[in-house]
Amino acid sequence: MSRITREKLDQAVELVQRSGLDLWLTFVRETAGGGDPALPLILDGGLTWQSALMVDKSGQKLAIVGHYDAEPIEASGDWDEVIRYHHGIGDALKETVRRLAPRTIGVNYSRDNDKADGITHGMLLLLKEYLGDSYEFVSAEEVVTALRSVKTAGEVEAMREAIEETHRLFREIEAYVEIKMSEMAVWDFVHRQVDARGMGYSWDSAQDPIVNSGPNSMAGHGMPSEQIRIEEGHIFHVDLGVTKNGYSSDLQRSWYVGGEVPEDVNKAFAAVIGAIDAGAATLRPGVEGWQVDEAARTYLVSQGYPEYMHAFGHQVGRKAHDGGSILGPRWERYGRTPYMAVEVGHVYTMELGVDVRGRGYLGVEEMVLVAEDGPVWLSQRQTELGVIR
Amino acid sequence: MSRITREKLDQAVELVQRSGLDLWLTFVRETAGGGDPALPLILDGGLTWQSALMVDKSGQKLAIVGHYDAEPIEASGDWDEVIRYHHGIGDALKETVRRLAPRTIGVNYSRDNDKADGITHGMLLLLKEYLGDSYEFVSAEEVVTALRSVKTAGEVEAMREAIEETHRLFREIEAYVEIKMSEMAVWDFVHRQVDARGMGYSWDSAQDPIVNSGPNSMAGHGMPSEQIRIEEGHIFHVDLGVTKNGYSSDLQRSWYVGGEVPEDVNKAFAAVIGAIDAGAATLRPGVEGWQVDEAARTYLVSQGYPEYMHAFGHQVGRKAHDGGSILGPRWERYGRTPYMAVEVGHVYTMELGVDVRGRGYLGVEEMVLVAEDGPVWLSQRQTELGVIR
Repeated sequence: MSRITREKLDQAVELVQRSGLDLWLTFVRETAGGGDPALPLILDGGLTWQSALMVDKSGQKLAIVGHYDAEPIEASGDWDEVIRYHHGIGDALKETVRRLAPRTIGVNYSRDNDKADGITHGMLLLLKEYLGDSYEFVSAEEVVTALRSVKTAGEVEAMREAIEETHRLFREIEAYVEIKMSEMAVWDFVHRQVDARGMGYSWDSAQDPIVNSGPNSMAGHGMPSEQIRIEEGHIFHVDLGVTKNGYSSDLQRSWYVGGEVPEDVNKAFAAVIGAIDAGAATLRPGVEGWQVDEAARTYLVSQGYPEYMHAFGHQVGRKAHDGGSILGPRWERYGRTPYMAVEVGHVYTMELGVDVRGRGYLGVEEMVLVAEDGPVWLSQRQTELGVIR
Repeated sequence: MSRITREKLDQAVELVQRSGLDLWLTFVRETAGGGDPALPLILDGGLTWQSALMVDKSGQKLAIVGHYDAEPIEASGDWDEVIRYHHGIGDALKETVRRLAPRTIGVNYSRDNDKADGITHGMLLLLKEYLGDSYEFVSAEEVVTALRSVKTAGEVEAMREAIEETHRLFREIEAYVEIKMSEMAVWDFVHRQVDARGMGYSWDSAQDPIVNSGPNSMAGHGMPSEQIRIEEGHIFHVDLGVTKNGYSSDLQRSWYVGGEVPEDVNKAFAAVIGAIDAGAATLRPGVEGWQVDEAARTYLVSQGYPEYMHAFGHQVGRKAHDGGSILGPRWERYGRTPYMAVEVGHVYTMELGVDVRGRGYLGVEEMVLVAEDGPVWLSQRQTELGVIR
């Protein structure tokens, strides 16, 4: 991951300088439990004691960390200055910030983008207690969102690998699945492969993959069932994401179970693919996410299907839901994220599906990288409905 | 995990009623990236959309979640009321809280205990925006800290299993290790076993296990080295924690490499064991953590060794560093945690070590459960220094 960390730190310096912040300060502790989502972008490994990672408007990178955490950070060579403390961070932090003399300090909080909202309320209280009232604390949302969203060459390469592994798993699932098999058996099979390959899951592994067969399957983010079995006449649907070398995929594929694909299923598949096409045709730098969603949503409804109750697309990166901007409708729950502009270097999924009466959920999801002139497909698109016999 | 979740929810009701809070509200979103550490105690699985999990002073348990997240929560039967929303949580949240009519709402923030500090600053801003100024938001630290710290029967059972697996790994390491082997080869070996058994790591896996051999090994939380090899005359030391069924261990063992153990190494081993004894003798309900640390620290110094530069003990649970209270010195970096009282049901590690000149780091770490009359050892204590030949 070191190559990526270096790319991201260079990018961070650029973003801080462009943002108008005097200092970007990431303040963390005990990151093994999760911690600030911005941290792994700029540091390999975790931190135990209270730590401050700073990028200053002059381009200086400074880390203040407990002495037990210092060695790997010094050894990385990524930081201009690594300051160790023994009993408490307070004095070193106060002095270092006084020396840098910022007026505004950007810290990682955000109302809308959870990936830029890494500082807990308790840690912000503590930071203000250490630094006193001499500084203006503002949201570093702009820096963190861009840092996370705009992928470097190394990151795109890592994501291509995760996507390739996902395609391989879809091929293996297709070969493995049989009529009368339970949804849970498919989930089990996928877990054996993923675990054996030392990969991780893009979301909660109890629900990754989501496996649905037929009309009685639990919709959306449900658990695969022991009871529900794959039967002739079903639509069989898998939503799967794996994490390899720290980067994730998120793709969906659907199959028909039985012989010839009936007309209603073919029609639904064409509508889903057409809606993805309509969204992709709209996706280019500068458009706002809701416009892309609207194109796909409008197309689907024009084909006689009800609109989907989620966003058309989201960024993917370290996790399946990543980055901030959403290709989604202007619903309250999405906050300002559908109004954010699509940028070169963003990686999105585009996903939707329809319930086919009596047959099940037909969903497809693809991944793209945004280039100057529109989307570059990272996944090999599903263009035909496979059949499981 | 369902048994434990049920135990923890029952415990949460008790703790809320004892705390004087009118309502305990856990407010989260996109928990796949980590999320609030309190959430996994009361819910199996993750949540994607903004969600409010509430325990009210009357003992009612209510969950407000997005429709895609609702089914597994309803299916669990753990919640008295599961309220679904479609476009945004705002209205349902406002109405539900108005109906419960709390004066004080406890939310998960804490200056001192990172495991009770799960609400991000952005999420607190959002919550206040939804609920307006009619309520007093206070820290639910007391409830969350106790919920996390005081282990139920199911939790103790799970931890015993993780500890048993760790002992097994120590035996396997002892059989595997040879003179001239690199630290990294030992780390690799452990990773193969842990991965094959489907277990996780109690902290950042790049540094779990910590493997040290000889005087030139990177101290503390460093990475195992390819270059440093196990040589005669070294002390060989491993700090290892595994996670099984969601619960963690954290233990250290040391060996001497070569033939007969030299006097300076025997003396250091006796001092370390004696310090653990001194700490354990002090550990009982009602004492403050720093008192336990002081007993161990004073003993070690009395034997002619320098004091260790960390806390003597910390709680263990879902993670290696857990729970809040610390058996540690009254240093700034530990905040108020060394002043917190030891309680029945806490699980602690007790750990320390000394550098033996020219030979390496000799560290030992054991785990105990606090009972009415003192510690119950959960680990099988290291009472002799093994020898690697």
